Amino acid sequence: MESFFKVKTPDEVFNILDQFGPVGEEKIPLEESSGRVLSRDVISPENLPGFYRSTMDGYAVKAKDTFGATESLPALLEVSGEIMMGETPQMKVLEGKAVKIPTGGMLPEGSDGVVMIEYCHLLDKQTLEINRAISPLEHVILPGDDIEKGARVIKKGCRLRPQDMGLLAGLGQSEISVYLKPRVSIISTGDEVVPIDKSPRPGQVRDINSYTLSAFCHRAGGKPKCMGLCPDDFVSLKGMIEKGLAQADMVWISGGSSVGTRDLTLKVIEVLPDFELLVHGISISPGKPTIIAKSGPKPIIGLPGHVASALVVAEVFLSRLISRLSGHTRSSGQSQGHVEAELGRNIESAGGREDYIRVRLVEKDKTLIAEPVFGKSGLISTLVEADGLIKIDMNTEGLYQGQGVRVFLL
Amino acid sequence: MESFFKVKTPDEVFNILDQFGPVGEEKIPLEESSGRVLSRDVISPENLPGFYRSTMDGYAVKAKDTFGATESLPALLEVSGEIMMGETPQMKVLEGKAVKIPTGGMLPEGSDGVVMIEYCHLLDKQTLEINRAISPLEHVILPGDDIEKGARVIKKGCRLRPQDMGLLAGLGQSEISVYLKPRVSIISTGDEVVPIDKSPRPGQVRDINSYTLSAFCHRAGGKPKCMGLCPDDFVSLKGMIEKGLAQADMVWISGGSSVGTRDLTLKVIEVLPDFELLVHGISISPGKPTIIAKSGPKPIIGLPGHVASALVVAEVFLSRLISRLSGHTRSSGQSQGHVEAELGRNIESAGGREDYIRVRLVEKDKTLIAEPVFGKSGLISTLVEADGLIKIDMNTEGLYQGQGVRVFLL
Repeated sequence: MESFFKVKTPDEVFNILDQFGPVGEEKIPLEESSGRVLSRDVISPENLPGFYRSTMDGYAVKAKDTFGATESLPALLEVSGEIMMGETPQMKVLEGKAVKIPTGGMLPEGSDGVVMIEYCHLLDKQTLEINRAISPLEHVILPGDDIEKGARVIKKGCRLRPQDMGLLAGLGQSEISVYLKPRVSIISTGDEVVPIDKSPRPGQVRDINSYTLSAFCHRAGGKPKCMGLCPDDFVSLKGMIEKGLAQADMVWISGGSSVGTRDLTLKVIEVLPDFELLVHGISISPGKPTIIAKSGPKPIIGLPGHVASALVVAEVFLSRLISRLSGHTRSSGQSQGHVEAELGRNIESAGGREDYIRVRLVEKDKTLIAEPVFGKSGLISTLVEADGLIKIDMNTEGLYQGQGVRVFLL
Repeated sequence: MESFFKVKTPDEVFNILDQFGPVGEEKIPLEESSGRVLSRDVISPENLPGFYRSTMDGYAVKAKDTFGATESLPALLEVSGEIMMGETPQMKVLEGKAVKIPTGGMLPEGSDGVVMIEYCHLLDKQTLEINRAISPLEHVILPGDDIEKGARVIKKGCRLRPQDMGLLAGLGQSEISVYLKPRVSIISTGDEVVPIDKSPRPGQVRDINSYTLSAFCHRAGGKPKCMGLCPDDFVSLKGMIEKGLAQADMVWISGGSSVGTRDLTLKVIEVLPDFELLVHGISISPGKPTIIAKSGPKPIIGLPGHVASALVVAEVFLSRLISRLSGHTRSSGQSQGHVEAELGRNIESAGGREDYIRVRLVEKDKTLIAEPVFGKSGLISTLVEADGLIKIDMNTEGLYQGQGVRVFLL
């Protein structure tokens, strides 16, 4: 099968990933919903604010009583009361009268505007001099000015930010429907890998991949579950993938940088129920030997063995996949955003594939410079030194020093 | 006191905030350290890798046995064994011999390079034809090539990313020293504010600020604790601030958009033990009536009452303060990063203050356009519509349509 399978371009892979959708929804308390993705449109059940509200400290009046008022010819009104914060005013504002009101206070019946305190002058306890005219509704927020009853205030598929949660609080939505966070079973394979609290013998290495991918998954909005280490044999790997699929919405397998181990992953995936191989090889570097398959509706990802390659693939493709499974529709698919910088030196690139180059960001004379981090691709230190990745397109032979580049933050 | 206090510029405020430092440290398991800030430099206790490691599937040989080998004049070597993943090889590679090795395998004694499998051809079980010469150490990672023993691999003050955690795993650091997350007591004041599960009577509003600020604090790396609602009186507010200071590293007070309430917050702060008023008013819009004080070493922040203003102040100043209390040294002080865009229309600005304008991001013909979101400043809907903020400097009278602007994401 392998030899018939054509390496896919990144765009083809994105299209394939976009077939996956949200894994389910749940109701959670508003206070726990920060960063979660709304699964239903929120329709406002009421007007916000629910009343005529003053935006200034001052006096509530009939606007027409101030018409023509100036410093030299002020209007004189009689103070007939004071509104307290949070109160429903019991009084009415009659012609020629004024009621003291704080910012945020509710306008009493009969008033249609607020004169700022700066333009008011109390001559005695009851007599107010106003030296500026206001227009009707000046310094007033109307019912529904912020949010109208029946309006769709936040669309499903949005990731909730602090201000969104504030709005939901304002509308009394103490429980929120959100998409489930996709659960990801993470398997690290390799006969040479030992748990991190063991001292590796010569020839062995500690389990870097589980920790890297699990932190990545968490940051990207998934719920990682490390399944532990798996030896390089068919029965063990099959058992662990089946267990991973049963417990989660997706399985990531990493490790196995040798051809033999990659073939093993493929062989196991091919015997899973309702199996489909979607991608076998992507034209990017690093990250070419990536496998994407599904068993039923659940994606299975075979990542390159080198952790640096695995993390690039995760950043480019798995952020997007987690977004899809999370129901997040506004996502750019990059988990960390990007900055613009100037390239610090020439970089060559082979054609026919997208190259992702690790770069360090340095500020020189107020310009952000992206300095490529060189080093063998298997070294995790190159990733730790890097602040981000720049992409060299498939049909570009390289980039020049001084050129503007977009750096995807790592 | 108030009248003697001069409004501070944003830069003066940043300098004041930078006097605060980390609140303490703790040891936590590596798997829980994603996004936490290292409190001690990590020095590598060992070489990574700890052995000569192959980066290719192939044969480990003495490089000089391949010198001169070409397709037309291949070298012939005798296969004397095979290395398994994770094994310490028991055999030696003698002159004229080759040992099969997988990617990641440990080189046996006597070998000093690996010939890729692509350039090898088995004539029979024991006879290997090699049609390309390698140089010594070709396709080999040396002990310490990734990380050298004794090297400082991650500096204190860094926020741990997935790759950093991978490196720490590789070095066997199962427990990590990190700075404590600063605990923030959040108080919402105002006689008009009711809990979100209550129906507000006319004149009342639900507690938007606690939810917005608590989600903001969480996202920025703090540990929020909502103290609940506080009526607008001296004794209640004093009691709640004291309780908040006792339980946390910092207190945020929001609400009180009327002049009276702002004065109340100030009066209470002024009677706290070991009190210092650091900032009373900042030359930014929105957000001018911000108070920054401290009681002993703990900051107390009086935020503007309107949630939209409070969130701008939080984004501009409190992200930075949380970073300081978190010990995070590489922080830009913005919690969400920024993007570059083109301004969608002219904006005027008053001089003498920094203006923060809410903008919506729209993509037109592959250009990102920042469209100002207008609306009265007290409306939370303007924040929900906004994707970010642009800053208009103090000495700028406005910005022009088409001009490049930096958008700080909200």
